[in-house]
Amino acid sequence: MMRPPLPSPSTSPAPALAESTGVPARTLARDLPSVPPGSVVRLQGWVHRRRELATVTFLVLRDRTGLAQIVVRTGAGPTAPAVPPEETTVEVTGTVTANPQAPGGVEVTGLGGAGLLITPLTDPAETPPVELWRPALSAALPTLLDHAAVAWRHPAQKARWEVAAASLRGFRATLDAAGFTEVCTPKLVGTATESGANVFPVDYFGRPAYLAQSPQFYKQQMVGVFERVYEVGPVFRAEPHDTVRHLAEYRSLDVELGFVRDHRDVLAVLRDVLAGMADAVRASGAAERLGVEVPRIPAEFPVLHFADALELVGAPSDEPDLAPEHERTLGEWARAEHGSDFVAVEGYPMAKRPFYTHPEPTQGPGDPRWSNSFDLLFRGLELVTGGQRLHRYADYVAAIEARGEDPASYASYLEAFRHGMPPHGGFAIGLERWVARLVGVANIREVTPFPRDLHRLTP
Amino acid sequence: MMRPPLPSPSTSPAPALAESTGVPARTLARDLPSVPPGSVVRLQGWVHRRRELATVTFLVLRDRTGLAQIVVRTGAGPTAPAVPPEETTVEVTGTVTANPQAPGGVEVTGLGGAGLLITPLTDPAETPPVELWRPALSAALPTLLDHAAVAWRHPAQKARWEVAAASLRGFRATLDAAGFTEVCTPKLVGTATESGANVFPVDYFGRPAYLAQSPQFYKQQMVGVFERVYEVGPVFRAEPHDTVRHLAEYRSLDVELGFVRDHRDVLAVLRDVLAGMADAVRASGAAERLGVEVPRIPAEFPVLHFADALELVGAPSDEPDLAPEHERTLGEWARAEHGSDFVAVEGYPMAKRPFYTHPEPTQGPGDPRWSNSFDLLFRGLELVTGGQRLHRYADYVAAIEARGEDPASYASYLEAFRHGMPPHGGFAIGLERWVARLVGVANIREVTPFPRDLHRLTP
Repeated sequence: MMRPPLPSPSTSPAPALAESTGVPARTLARDLPSVPPGSVVRLQGWVHRRRELATVTFLVLRDRTGLAQIVVRTGAGPTAPAVPPEETTVEVTGTVTANPQAPGGVEVTGLGGAGLLITPLTDPAETPPVELWRPALSAALPTLLDHAAVAWRHPAQKARWEVAAASLRGFRATLDAAGFTEVCTPKLVGTATESGANVFPVDYFGRPAYLAQSPQFYKQQMVGVFERVYEVGPVFRAEPHDTVRHLAEYRSLDVELGFVRDHRDVLAVLRDVLAGMADAVRASGAAERLGVEVPRIPAEFPVLHFADALELVGAPSDEPDLAPEHERTLGEWARAEHGSDFVAVEGYPMAKRPFYTHPEPTQGPGDPRWSNSFDLLFRGLELVTGGQRLHRYADYVAAIEARGEDPASYASYLEAFRHGMPPHGGFAIGLERWVARLVGVANIREVTPFPRDLHRLTP
Repeated sequence: MMRPPLPSPSTSPAPALAESTGVPARTLARDLPSVPPGSVVRLQGWVHRRRELATVTFLVLRDRTGLAQIVVRTGAGPTAPAVPPEETTVEVTGTVTANPQAPGGVEVTGLGGAGLLITPLTDPAETPPVELWRPALSAALPTLLDHAAVAWRHPAQKARWEVAAASLRGFRATLDAAGFTEVCTPKLVGTATESGANVFPVDYFGRPAYLAQSPQFYKQQMVGVFERVYEVGPVFRAEPHDTVRHLAEYRSLDVELGFVRDHRDVLAVLRDVLAGMADAVRASGAAERLGVEVPRIPAEFPVLHFADALELVGAPSDEPDLAPEHERTLGEWARAEHGSDFVAVEGYPMAKRPFYTHPEPTQGPGDPRWSNSFDLLFRGLELVTGGQRLHRYADYVAAIEARGEDPASYASYLEAFRHGMPPHGGFAIGLERWVARLVGVANIREVTPFPRDLHRLTP
């Protein structure tokens, strides 16, 4: 496909830095209160709110750090700058002026020698589908989800994601400091062997492939290389449930570590990780802006054995799992008895755990029908699943054969164990569940910018 | 499915900390040289090498931090501990002994009062498919890839991924410090509109869906919320190429930022990001262990206009793109003329760039048939594509209609622009290409633990 030759451009020099041309550097809304009154500043952002009174128009400007008030004296006549409609992006140049009634005690006006300049950076914005300037976003959930690109601009909605972003930062910082290595494992896999159900099929160059439900097999193999690994990535579950706590694609915060004694060592790492996440959320200020309490992470989580948990909630002793109402009761118990937002339940029946789960050891008081695994409940909701895994090759072969399957179909996974693996374990935290529980919303879609579920694949 | 009730377990106390029972805390191989000789230490790791001589067996132990030498005096008779085969995981307790000839000047022996204990943590390992103890991994690429779980344990192979992990750390640290917010955008999308080709189809609850080729549309929408965003995630390309520089799934390091003047502001951020990545790689020590030079990042990248680049490589002025041999020539030019491993080419023809690309502005010396976009070449290979994007709604509608498409099919993406977006731009770095070029391998599969391509979907 030939195109006519383009004219050779004049060599254009790199644009001069704003700082060297007399134009002041951009000031962020957050920093405005610390600028000396009388200074000329240049702000950039969105027209968050335009309020026109008789002789004055208030422009509240929104940038990534907060809000700033600009005062336009329209009584001055036709030379007063026009304020474009809400959500239009603008650049504002004016003078910082003290006003105890303005947010942060300062506003920007044209009172100084420089006048007030408001320059639109785009065409005037159309009226948004939700009222972003109101203190609370009153949109119904479908409206929020359908108009995510705009609705998430609301400061409260934005702060929910800032909780998520801070959590990721705290997760990685804690693990980096503890000698963990970040890994990236494939999301396209050739077999659906891990759970066998609820996988999304992919047409892979005409061959069948599947989306990974978890990095489980890969993170274990990488323990053989790095001892301690973590991954933050998407996982995919073709779950035909339509509930407030399931998504078809979500972010899994995966950890796996070698040379553990048992699942209690894994639980201790989980404790430190959640403490690091909570600290980062606190430091971000996002929880404070939302008016929510960041949970205090106890030095050790209260731990209940599964059998004791059943007894505590009054369930029959042969129940194979905890129902949501049982989890709620245990959450209330942990709060009342231990002042803790968290409680770990260990020893889940082997029959309900995946084949790679390590049973309770037969030496000591354990029973191999129970497992060295745990769930961690956060405010009465399952947040984390984890535990110790098998590490002997022979145990894997036996566990796979006991399911009536052929170990040969797990050959590349099992190679790690044939050639020496340490006792190890790990866990996975669902990011969306953590954030939803922390900010106090029931439906994880309210904290997920572009959720995917049985019914929703857009925007 | 009912199960017989399990016996209620005795309440087992949390395992006592090793430190409180007289067992020394684990010492890492890296820290051994700083332990005073005569101290009793406990090491854990893999039998990296077992060398049996007449009266002594050398055990080189490998853990996540390096190697440690253990000396077993077999002349002592049947009480000498047995050394299990290579790759078996073991725990070793013994006494630190100075030996100028040992790595780090120390080794662990049974000379102290405590004797030497070697406890296998698993059954004896089978002989690995590659010789991990040799200084260089001599396996052919298919062997490396087929036996990834074991082959990546080789210290040189492991160091390659440590370069990748350090790069991710440096990427995020640079952007976190510059006010960027990490975002997580969906990998399952409802339409294949971005490029229209080379997408993997997914069976999504019986409906068609696709794997995202890039987070482009979503990161732009999130600029409307956070101004400055980044994402590290998998991207999927059903490219029918079988080359040394393409994968069907790879890690894309995506950045997008608002309130830029043009693509040169984006390039300046890219420069800082790569400098942060290079610093983190340097600090990790992995490049040094591999004997490779971490590139020096110039204060500003040399920039060539596309038309000038064509002239420089002697290509016809109507060529619409740069061929790999052109990129190599430009890399040599940058090295010779500017002492730089990097060179940016800006102004690629609009006809070869995606529809959201911003043209050169018509005011000034620009020509709207050229674009405000760039490629960054690293040692003569395209590493990054980036540039300024359109930001006016009307420009999007015109660009989509010019392709003969209906803007309605882009409705949710375009909503961001209808309701006010700033001038913005961004870029995407391919993690595997960066690492491959940095460590000096031609095939990106050599730095990717579980690559996915036209032929390979396992392990």
